[in-house]
Amino acid sequence: TQRYNNEIYKTANMPGVAVGLAWTYVGGDILFIETALSDGGKGELKLTGNLGNVMKESATTALSYLQSNAKKYNIEPETFNKKNIHIHIPEGATPKDGPSAGITMLTSLASAFTGRKVKSYLAMTGEITLRGQVLPVGGIKEKVLAAKRAGIREIIMCYLNEKDVNEIDAEFIKGVHFHYVKTMQHVLEIALT
Amino acid sequence: TQRYNNEIYKTANMPGVAVGLAWTYVGGDILFIETALSDGGKGELKLTGNLGNVMKESATTALSYLQSNAKKYNIEPETFNKKNIHIHIPEGATPKDGPSAGITMLTSLASAFTGRKVKSYLAMTGEITLRGQVLPVGGIKEKVLAAKRAGIREIIMCYLNEKDVNEIDAEFIKGVHFHYVKTMQHVLEIALT
Amino acid sequence: TQRYNNEIYKTANMPGVAVGLAWTYVGGDILFIETALSDGGKGELKLTGNLGNVMKESATTALSYLQSNAKKYNIEPETFNKKNIHIHIPEGATPKDGPSAGITMLTSLASAFTGRKVKSYLAMTGEITLRGQVLPVGGIKEKVLAAKRAGIREIIMCYLNEKDVNEIDAEFIKGVHFHYVKTMQHVLEIALT
Amino acid sequence: TQRYNNEIYKTANMPGVAVGLAWTYVGGDILFIETALSDGGKGELKLTGNLGNVMKESATTALSYLQSNAKKYNIEPETFNKKNIHIHIPEGATPKDGPSAGITMLTSLASAFTGRKVKSYLAMTGEITLRGQVLPVGGIKEKVLAAKRAGIREIIMCYLNEKDVNEIDAEFIKGVHFHYVKTMQHVLEIALT
Amino acid sequence: TQRYNNEIYKTANMPGVAVGLAWTYVGGDILFIETALSDGGKGELKLTGNLGNVMKESATTALSYLQSNAKKYNIEPETFNKKNIHIHIPEGATPKDGPSAGITMLTSLASAFTGRKVKSYLAMTGEITLRGQVLPVGGIKEKVLAAKRAGIREIIMCYLNEKDVNEIDAEFIKGVHFHYVKTMQHVLEIALT
Amino acid sequence: TQRYNNEIYKTANMPGVAVGLAWTYVGGDILFIETALSDGGKGELKLTGNLGNVMKESATTALSYLQSNAKKYNIEPETFNKKNIHIHIPEGATPKDGPSAGITMLTSLASAFTGRKVKSYLAMTGEITLRGQVLPVGGIKEKVLAAKRAGIREIIMCYLNEKDVNEIDAEFIKGVHFHYVKTMQHVLEIALT
Ligand SMILES: [Ca+2]
Ligand SMILES: [Ca+2]
Ligand SMILES: [Ca+2]
Ligand SMILES: [Ca+2]
Ligand SMILES: [Ca+2]
Ligand SMILES: [Ca+2]
Ligand SMILES: [Ca+2]
Ligand SMILES: [Ca+2]
Ligand SMILES: [Ca+2]
Ligand SMILES: [Ca+2]
Ligand SMILES: [Ca+2]
Ligand SMILES: [Ca+2]
Repeated sequence: TQRYNNEIYKTANMPGVAVGLAWTYVGGDILFIETALSDGGKGELKLTGNLGNVMKESATTALSYLQSNAKKYNIEPETFNKKNIHIHIPEGATPKDGPSAGITMLTSLASAFTGRKVKSYLAMTGEITLRGQVLPVGGIKEKVLAAKRAGIREIIMCYLNEKDVNEIDAEFIKGVHFHYVKTMQHVLEIALT
Repeated sequence: TQRYNNEIYKTANMPGVAVGLAWTYVGGDILFIETALSDGGKGELKLTGNLGNVMKESATTALSYLQSNAKKYNIEPETFNKKNIHIHIPEGATPKDGPSAGITMLTSLASAFTGRKVKSYLAMTGEITLRGQVLPVGGIKEKVLAAKRAGIREIIMCYLNEKDVNEIDAEFIKGVHFHYVKTMQHVLEIALT
Repeated sequence: TQRYNNEIYKTANMPGVAVGLAWTYVGGDILFIETALSDGGKGELKLTGNLGNVMKESATTALSYLQSNAKKYNIEPETFNKKNIHIHIPEGATPKDGPSAGITMLTSLASAFTGRKVKSYLAMTGEITLRGQVLPVGGIKEKVLAAKRAGIREIIMCYLNEKDVNEIDAEFIKGVHFHYVKTMQHVLEIALT
Repeated sequence: TQRYNNEIYKTANMPGVAVGLAWTYVGGDILFIETALSDGGKGELKLTGNLGNVMKESATTALSYLQSNAKKYNIEPETFNKKNIHIHIPEGATPKDGPSAGITMLTSLASAFTGRKVKSYLAMTGEITLRGQVLPVGGIKEKVLAAKRAGIREIIMCYLNEKDVNEIDAEFIKGVHFHYVKTMQHVLEIALT
Repeated sequence: TQRYNNEIYKTANMPGVAVGLAWTYVGGDILFIETALSDGGKGELKLTGNLGNVMKESATTALSYLQSNAKKYNIEPETFNKKNIHIHIPEGATPKDGPSAGITMLTSLASAFTGRKVKSYLAMTGEITLRGQVLPVGGIKEKVLAAKRAGIREIIMCYLNEKDVNEIDAEFIKGVHFHYVKTMQHVLEIALT
Repeated sequence: TQRYNNEIYKTANMPGVAVGLAWTYVGGDILFIETALSDGGKGELKLTGNLGNVMKESATTALSYLQSNAKKYNIEPETFNKKNIHIHIPEGATPKDGPSAGITMLTSLASAFTGRKVKSYLAMTGEITLRGQVLPVGGIKEKVLAAKRAGIREIIMCYLNEKDVNEIDAEFIKGVHFHYVKTMQHVLEIALT
């Protein structure tokens, strides 16, 4: 978990990159979720990084939400049919699955489509629904501690996960600010600069 | 099963969302079924939410029924070839299968295509047939009790399931109104506002 | 096997529905086979209802036979390239397989394409060949008794299965009329009204 | 193996039907191979009848041979891109595999494309190559005896299988005439009327 | 291994056929690799003959090499997009895999595309690379002895396999001439007449 | 590991070839990664050489990076939609997987698309990210020793792998120069001539 120090984190501060929190077989970890768009496409979605089916479905759901709400986020609707979309999560040697990267995938996509960078030192975890809600997820304690170790300063999650944060010893997470949200719109208001 | 309290339920009262009843390995539960339509499509149907093959077939059957009966429900037939259709069922960590979400999927689709919201505090369970019938399903007691706990006030099911409801202790389901139906047309008359 | 009483049977007396006989792990049963056509298609065939590969191949074979013999049955040949075709067999919780639904699938397809309803209280069982023959199938006793219990009054099968019917105690099948056939043309002459 | 008596055999004496010899888990048997062509196609090949991968590859190889040698057999080359082609082998309950139906598949295809019927009471067995050769196959004794029982009067096979026929007791195959061939061209000269 | 005697070998001396050497579970053997081209295609590659994935990849690699070097071999580049290509390896009952048929597949393809026959009584074995090299393969002793038994007079292989030939007792391979090569260009200079 | 001596290495000094380092079940090894482009394509990516899914995803990621950064490397963006792209890794008998060939795949692709050869006697190992970073990988000691044995003189890897090189006995790697990098842009500056 100390592989990504702040130095690497800073080298690629560009639109399309968001930080998620995962709970893998080695404990909590942070995940960089990267989205690249390319021209001459037809809205095809490529997903790489050793992702399981549930995680792939999260990406599909995030994309459908963004497409259905394009105008709200000042994205030209036709863009979705003109670009090819590639979402990649590095560290291909580690299998990754589960729905908890959903809101991070949405943030990565929204950042790429709007050209607005994601706020620095921000991470997030939460399942996404097609109608724009953020659902609670598991493994909060391990995820939050991993985020703290990696230098993260703000974390977004579902308001129903607040009780899980309250169970963590306060001195372990000193200096980390938490955002408890209900909707994806709220996530993007916090995350996009 | 207490994850969805009324507060979440109310946050997304929009067309395309219907509430079904499921019987999972943790007992009865309610399922939110979400449909989003997007432009520039060709009638492609995307299904996400960790669904098994039988549940995916239910969605296909519901869509064919709606398409074959488009005029009856005031839907332009060409719409089916111009939109892409995404049906999602949240809580991706839980595998879901079986035919009993069929009528809920139809209701979610019909709501999205007509723009008419589904009645609040209404849930339903039942298999769908291509010619417009509602078939009985199993697990009625567990499903009904879960619906009651979640604040549901009306439930639609096949008239052949009435005997299963009659076996539940009446005080457990006080205040819940039951609609026993034979046809999908009847389901939509009750469900769409 | 008493799930479909006569009442449900009668609620959907429309073109595209035919009754077959199956032999599942719970014994003989009747199967409703439903075909729906929709416009704006390209001859694509959708098959749902938890069908195994052999049963899916039967549907493909039935469709090819009907297409090759379109003129004989007064169907416009171009119709096959303009419609999408969906065959569904309800009761998705039960896996279904084997070739014995072949002639029922043909009848369901022919009924949908011609708009002629299938005769009431008629069931059938038999494998189909591409050149228009009806082949004998197994499980005749169990299938016939299930049909009788469900209120079926006429049954079509291959003439080579007559010996299997003769082994059933006559009083069990009193009032059921049997049609022993060699060809699919004969099946459709009996079945389509 | 007595399922197909002569009566069924004669009911469908039409182009596109050829008789092969198979060696299944119940011993030798005869196989009817049926080809149907339909208009409005794009040269797509459908294969049904519970066929294994090797048998499917035989059909593909037979079709490529016929297409490459279309002129030799007076077939318009463009026909292959205008028709859809369906090869079916009845008795879907029995899995079928192996390369030995290759020359029968070629004969069935050539009969359908030329409109010339296959000679009556003729069967055949042999692997096909893309360059027009007939290769020897196994199970000759069982296949030949099954053909005799079914009323077959002539059998085509590779000349390298002649030694296998010579090992069969002559009185068992009295009245059956054998054609030993090297090439597919020879097969079609014998088989097509 | 004595199935293909010289007589069969000579019956189909046409462009598109090349002889490879394989090492199957019954020992060394020769393989006929056949390529047929057909018009009205779009560069699709069909592979049949019970081939494993590595062998299929060899065919793909051979085709890409030929396409990238079309001009060097006097092939019109557009040909690759106008023809359908079928590579078949007879004896479908035997599963075949591994990279050692690569240069034989290239030779078969090059022969079909140029219309130049492959030299008689010539066999070859070797892995192919995309940049035109021939790599050494295993099982040389068994392959060479099988080729000798089948009447092969010349064999092409990678120069790094020369040491494997030198370990074979000289009297066993009397009369067989060996070509040790580094490049596919060299293979085709020897093989195409 | 002595299969590729310098002689083979030099025979194909052409654009599109790069040398990677792998860690297979027989220890460290070098891998030649070959890219060939062909006309008349539509940006399709073919991958051969017995590659596992994670390695295939690396190739997809490398291609997306190159496409998103086409202008930076003087590649016409439309080229990606006009060419077919084939990446092959020889020695098809050996299964290959893992993310560590990512930067070598990028280099092979960039070389093919720019027409600039890769520097001689250079190898590399490292995971690639979509936003242009080089990530550290495992097995450094075995890979470096295999590179030395094969005559490699320069090796590129992530700066976070420098500590792994420092643990190797200096006399084993005398004469090998190491480049420690953070970005793919740096990799290509070193690798492309
Ligand atoms: Ca990590
Ligand atoms: Ca996350
Ligand atoms: Ca729940
Ligand atoms: Ca339901
Ligand atoms: Ca039933
Ligand atoms: Ca039936
Ligand atoms: Ca039989
Ligand atoms: Ca045969
Ligand atoms: Ca052989
Ligand atoms: Ca070979
Ligand atoms: Ca090696
Ligand atoms: Ca590498």
